[in-house]
Amino acid sequence: MEIAQQAIPLPISTIAERLGICAEQIEPYGRFKAKIPLNVLEARPYRREGRLVLVTAVSPTPAGEGKTTTTVGLGDALTRLGEKAMLCLREPALGPVFGMKGGAAGGGYAQVIPMEDINLHFTGDFPAIAAANNLLAAMIDNHIFHGNALGIDPRRVTWRRVLDVNDRTLRDIVTGLGGINNGLPREAGFDIVPASEVMAVFCLATSLADLRDRLGNIVIGRTYDKRPVLARNLKAHGAMAALLRDALAPNLVQTMEHTPAFVHGGPFANIAHGTNTVIATQAALGLADWVVTEAGFGADLGAEKYFDIVCRRYGLRPAVSVVVTTVRAMKYHGGVEVADLTAPDVTAVRRGLVNLERHVETLREVFGQKVVVAINHRAEDAPDEVDTILEAAAAMGVRAVEARHFAEGGAGAEDLARAVLEVASDDPAEPTYAYPLDGSLWDKLRDVASKVYRAKDINASAAIRRTLRQLEDEGFGELPVCVAKTQYSFSTDPKLRGAPEGHIVDVREVRLSAGAEFVVMVCGSIMTMPGLPARPSAESIDVLPDGSIVGLF
Amino acid sequence: MEIAQQAIPLPISTIAERLGICAEQIEPYGRFKAKIPLNVLEARPYRREGRLVLVTAVSPTPAGEGKTTTTVGLGDALTRLGEKAMLCLREPALGPVFGMKGGAAGGGYAQVIPMEDINLHFTGDFPAIAAANNLLAAMIDNHIFHGNALGIDPRRVTWRRVLDVNDRTLRDIVTGLGGINNGLPREAGFDIVPASEVMAVFCLATSLADLRDRLGNIVIGRTYDKRPVLARNLKAHGAMAALLRDALAPNLVQTMEHTPAFVHGGPFANIAHGTNTVIATQAALGLADWVVTEAGFGADLGAEKYFDIVCRRYGLRPAVSVVVTTVRAMKYHGGVEVADLTAPDVTAVRRGLVNLERHVETLREVFGQKVVVAINHRAEDAPDEVDTILEAAAAMGVRAVEARHFAEGGAGAEDLARAVLEVASDDPAEPTYAYPLDGSLWDKLRDVASKVYRAKDINASAAIRRTLRQLEDEGFGELPVCVAKTQYSFSTDPKLRGAPEGHIVDVREVRLSAGAEFVVMVCGSIMTMPGLPARPSAESIDVLPDGSIVGLF
Repeated sequence: MEIAQQAIPLPISTIAERLGICAEQIEPYGRFKAKIPLNVLEARPYRREGRLVLVTAVSPTPAGEGKTTTTVGLGDALTRLGEKAMLCLREPALGPVFGMKGGAAGGGYAQVIPMEDINLHFTGDFPAIAAANNLLAAMIDNHIFHGNALGIDPRRVTWRRVLDVNDRTLRDIVTGLGGINNGLPREAGFDIVPASEVMAVFCLATSLADLRDRLGNIVIGRTYDKRPVLARNLKAHGAMAALLRDALAPNLVQTMEHTPAFVHGGPFANIAHGTNTVIATQAALGLADWVVTEAGFGADLGAEKYFDIVCRRYGLRPAVSVVVTTVRAMKYHGGVEVADLTAPDVTAVRRGLVNLERHVETLREVFGQKVVVAINHRAEDAPDEVDTILEAAAAMGVRAVEARHFAEGGAGAEDLARAVLEVASDDPAEPTYAYPLDGSLWDKLRDVASKVYRAKDINASAAIRRTLRQLEDEGFGELPVCVAKTQYSFSTDPKLRGAPEGHIVDVREVRLSAGAEFVVMVCGSIMTMPGLPARPSAESIDVLPDGSIVGLF
Repeated sequence: MEIAQQAIPLPISTIAERLGICAEQIEPYGRFKAKIPLNVLEARPYRREGRLVLVTAVSPTPAGEGKTTTTVGLGDALTRLGEKAMLCLREPALGPVFGMKGGAAGGGYAQVIPMEDINLHFTGDFPAIAAANNLLAAMIDNHIFHGNALGIDPRRVTWRRVLDVNDRTLRDIVTGLGGINNGLPREAGFDIVPASEVMAVFCLATSLADLRDRLGNIVIGRTYDKRPVLARNLKAHGAMAALLRDALAPNLVQTMEHTPAFVHGGPFANIAHGTNTVIATQAALGLADWVVTEAGFGADLGAEKYFDIVCRRYGLRPAVSVVVTTVRAMKYHGGVEVADLTAPDVTAVRRGLVNLERHVETLREVFGQKVVVAINHRAEDAPDEVDTILEAAAAMGVRAVEARHFAEGGAGAEDLARAVLEVASDDPAEPTYAYPLDGSLWDKLRDVASKVYRAKDINASAAIRRTLRQLEDEGFGELPVCVAKTQYSFSTDPKLRGAPEGHIVDVREVRLSAGAEFVVMVCGSIMTMPGLPARPSAESIDVLPDGSIVGLF
């Protein structure tokens, strides 16, 4: 954080001008953030030259492997090598900042800035998404209160409210208590904003009209005779789209080394699809020659969804996929406990390599990707530990490079950038996918589970199977599936490290996201509303009388 | 709304420059909104020449009497007369925009712009306030969940969550259901953001350090042995202040005629204290010769609290108070039903004048104010109806002026501005107050009830009286009281129009706001979370593919 506070940013108008956008065309938010209006972006359509680099990772340790820092470092290194590069990142949620996570805008000398703003309120996109989500919720209960002309079954309302705070006590609540003036009591609950379907819709919409239309398609629950009720039936989608109008323009910021970055939209990858807005990525491909983007958590989660949900739908073709790993993560997957990860242990690294190998294999064989492995350097790494990973990569026939952007900025990632430039396809083919869209929802999940998670089978209660058949009968069978699953394992058991196989994926819940156009399969126990730890980082975040914020990292 | 969409604003940097603030010193939010950093304002301290005009009103009809339009019109008229004038207004809440109210940034040719932005997300102050409020709530339940070292009694937690949406079903809820991982079940509830104590703290803080200190003083509930638990005991106040740091800088916008306006903070006047931030008002007095501000709802609510809570604490001395009335409101108080208010009815106007007379008398005799009456013109007003009001004012010895700013902009309010310039005190004395601070809380409420509401007495249950005594024992007896009461009547019965007297004010609930430094007395039934009507305006708000928003008014 201190490093970020010392970085000297360029005026955001200068960054925009480097992308060919006049200062007069941007909407500044302070001096170092701006929204780029959609009509300005529409005048710069996608160009064949714009090449997309996907940054993904091994299954992470609880601290994360530095996917965002690597994305930033790679972008800065490409810039240093004379390439016209740009980043596309997600916006961090506010809730986790006050929990365990601290900020999420990169770290060390590989950060997007202004880091404090990005981690706190930024340009107001998350509050706008929450407002749209909660307006719909209020209109549902209000409709029921005022006579319920649509015949909404209060027990079958699936639409949940959202807040951008880690608050476990809001997961399961009863609303409408206190008498007849307060509505009808029913079971309800809150998710965190990044888990909202409105967030997914926001990230997958291609225009304001498309956004409005998708919002209208949201299924909020069922009538007493079990027919779906849409947001458009409640006439909520117009007002929701109005609330999101300004937010839909991508946010432009810069790295500490002045590489332009769109930071826009922020769905979690363990409970949602996990990548920034399609609008930002498409726009970036029209503005830069190299667009580096990241997909959340390990390749089993973020990358799988990026290919199967996003790339397929929008014709995106990554020229190369970068898999971020650390010595630390390999030891973790080799069975070392978190407290012992700093001690050198080549044997453990060797045991843990199965996790990296599995992800690389998936990317190459399931999704047809060219792959580069980035070993995100940490001070305590022993040379023979790093060599062990490099050798394993060589054995797989994959380029692997150590990257030192955290300590050295873009200069430390030049080798990585050169590897990316060499490996990247000049004319990327369409990716291959884990499943075809025309199978059943069950088959799609089974394909993901067998090809990506290497599970033996998937399992679900009779009620969930019935729900899936009902969704297919209603015409939702053509949608892709979006798996909500722990990020710590290929399986649904976060304790199963390495590269487990032969496990069973248990489907605990199915949520239709008709607006986002996917069906969420909640596998294992995964929380859509996090809690705070015993000592939340909020306790040490503070602001001094002069306005400087401390404790954010 | 169409008028506002057609208005051509000046760049906000130009508006700032007219106030003597360089373009480089402001934080732009788009081209027509900016935050003025606190250190920039601190360099321009309060000047003796800055004179404050308070705009208040009669007890309103459900549609309101145009207090904000009059404030805007008066400011524009002062500008037209060559005075250096500036406005201080509250920010509208989002919730009511989607309910019945439509926007709240003035109307006709007397608006602050950009109206859409101000009514939707503006510069993000409300979301920041909600985030700070809800972080504290999460930290309370999290503390209880992780062992409850402070011994917080879950049944005695008084801190409520907030959302900026009209959602009646969130008033009374049970949280923490669903098993041991989800916390401890307890009764809880949501208020709308303008009712939050954080909003009041935000509006009454004089600096970032003062804000942080007041946030730390918030009492969130009681321990099992009934001792107060403070936000600082939970170490929440630093993070809350960090969340509010940027919001605390006043928002600069302009009227359609380019008069500068601070629009900052937005507590409701029926459930909170009802005026914009003290920081904005104090700063405006350092930047302009005339500062026109408004206090919410009728003078019994907004003005009473402005004098007794705000002016007393911060040494503010209004040079004149403007009471806004309409022919329509006089007929309403004369007994005419809302549907019939457009038909001329001089007799009803005459009957209704008691409401205006009562408010004028209160301002003069209780608060020691010089008064001007503004008759906010409406197209259907009959000349003899207006004359009736003018004659009544003359009989009271009060200057009264018809103002036509809604249809004519500042030109239509020049007579009003001239009256204000003539009546305003050159060297305003300290106002007088409804009660001294050293009496008991009970006596303070009784003074307000007898002097301002003309009630016969106040009444409360034994439990509430016990609570008041307890607060006094704990050292909160020196605080002023903040009455939450219907805006439609001097009494607690919204149906009792005109100028009722001899009624009883029933205290339903007491809420300590130790951070805001007042004790809220909830009198009669007043909702701190509104509901939506059967046909919410959200149903007709929409956004066109080109981005224009319809239905906001």
